[in-house]
Amino acid sequence: MLPSWRRGATRDAVIAFLDAAEQLAPAQRVAVFDNDGTLWCEKPTYVQYDFLEDALKVKAAADPSVHDRAEYAAVLDGDWAAIQQLGLERVAMALLELFAGVTPEQFDANVVEFFNRARHRVLQVPLAHLVYQPMLELLDELRRRRFTVFIVSGGGTEFVRAISEALYGVQPEAVVGTLVEYEFLRDDRGAPLLVRTARVLGDANEGAAKVRSIQTQLGRRPILAVGNSAGDKEMLEWALAGDTPSLALLLDHDDEAREYRYASVSATVEEHEAITDVGRRLGWTIISMEHDWERVFPD
Amino acid sequence: MLPSWRRGATRDAVIAFLDAAEQLAPAQRVAVFDNDGTLWCEKPTYVQYDFLEDALKVKAAADPSVHDRAEYAAVLDGDWAAIQQLGLERVAMALLELFAGVTPEQFDANVVEFFNRARHRVLQVPLAHLVYQPMLELLDELRRRRFTVFIVSGGGTEFVRAISEALYGVQPEAVVGTLVEYEFLRDDRGAPLLVRTARVLGDANEGAAKVRSIQTQLGRRPILAVGNSAGDKEMLEWALAGDTPSLALLLDHDDEAREYRYASVSATVEEHEAITDVGRRLGWTIISMEHDWERVFPD
Repeated sequence: MLPSWRRGATRDAVIAFLDAAEQLAPAQRVAVFDNDGTLWCEKPTYVQYDFLEDALKVKAAADPSVHDRAEYAAVLDGDWAAIQQLGLERVAMALLELFAGVTPEQFDANVVEFFNRARHRVLQVPLAHLVYQPMLELLDELRRRRFTVFIVSGGGTEFVRAISEALYGVQPEAVVGTLVEYEFLRDDRGAPLLVRTARVLGDANEGAAKVRSIQTQLGRRPILAVGNSAGDKEMLEWALAGDTPSLALLLDHDDEAREYRYASVSATVEEHEAITDVGRRLGWTIISMEHDWERVFPD
Repeated sequence: MLPSWRRGATRDAVIAFLDAAEQLAPAQRVAVFDNDGTLWCEKPTYVQYDFLEDALKVKAAADPSVHDRAEYAAVLDGDWAAIQQLGLERVAMALLELFAGVTPEQFDANVVEFFNRARHRVLQVPLAHLVYQPMLELLDELRRRRFTVFIVSGGGTEFVRAISEALYGVQPEAVVGTLVEYEFLRDDRGAPLLVRTARVLGDANEGAAKVRSIQTQLGRRPILAVGNSAGDKEMLEWALAGDTPSLALLLDHDDEAREYRYASVSATVEEHEAITDVGRRLGWTIISMEHDWERVFPD
């Protein structure tokens, strides 16, 4: 069980929870996982950002006037200072326009094509090799123990769904992320047609929005929540707030040799406290990538 | 197979579709069902309306001033003319306020308690006896053939979820309906708390909204859609618009002896055409409750 997890207090806590959950009905065995930085590498840039940057480059090659827009110029130039100054949200909303008018099937095909071609910009491995092997083992062990596994991501729902079955064995309907609004149209023959807009439906799926979307889109309360960043705080608290055995797991990226070392601090956390400190205060189990994982990526 | 379905063209069409779907990958075998009037009886009133009316009566018994509000008075008096005049949507929004501030767990418990106690206002049977036996058999047959079954209802998502597992074997996350907004709060000890508001999130889940919510909340395209009313039109069209074997099934309530006889016509259908006529024009398979079903309700 969990062969890539080193023996120690963290692995013991995970196994103690899994054993305690056996007393619960299968319907109560619900686990939610963040995606970026929890199931796969999110540095130096989000994979979804890489996808959108790639699509923008294709567009700019055909139409140089794309460069005239400040948000697009910043991305094409890799100008992180400009992106920060414009604000990541404004840049993200501009990038969302690249796929407005596209059908769900076309969008899926675009994501899959990118995945089969692209490599991590630093590690130079295919993107499918950026998933964390210990997390894949945990997903398998949860399913073996009749858990239902959901992905609750801040990323775009359809982006994650396009690869969730292949990478994690998680079906589209078990993925909740930031939602794009769709428009229902009709083609020339009157047949229905569904296309993406450039609008986000509701809030970006971070912080308290993750808890609300777990309720509205999944309707079951998790007893295990796994995350890595300040945007996962409320979801991890939510898992611990029930009256059954529960576990909040936070991955600490403290391994600059095999992956990256960084702290997640954001305005959603009180007094800009590092999320690892918040977690220790709230009784979460902190996974040290350096110490608790024998292997990080699949072979 | 399908023992409560009489032999004939309708049953043949269903079985021909099920056989044709065997050639598809299981991930493509996706079926969506409307709930009210498709999986269970919706006359003379929606079951959810009965639930809300019941809750309002409890409230009015404790606080007679409830009667001062026009929407509530109309419901308490069973004054259908007044309800029509006020508009069903306005009455529904007023009833939604009854559960504002309530947690998901409390709401679930309220629905289940009502189900265990209430009886159909005409037939006087427990509500669980109002599901259609032939549809239960179709759900079972679909699952046997590795279909994923979703419920796509115009009713409240949480209301349907509270009973979907017990009545239909459908888990909460496989139910999509009209969504209520939630608020993320904290209790006295700072622990997270999720409560219902009196606001609907997005549109009521009818018509084109059903197609949009299938995409945003489930992310898979159905090849079988089953409905009974004008609010199911776009969903049934959507199932037929793909390029795989597909089937659109419409239940015609033409059986006043065993259930009800009524036509569904609404402003969402062009020129106020009956939905059965629309279906015949669009190549749907129409189920005659009177002729195609040997049994309507379970024993």
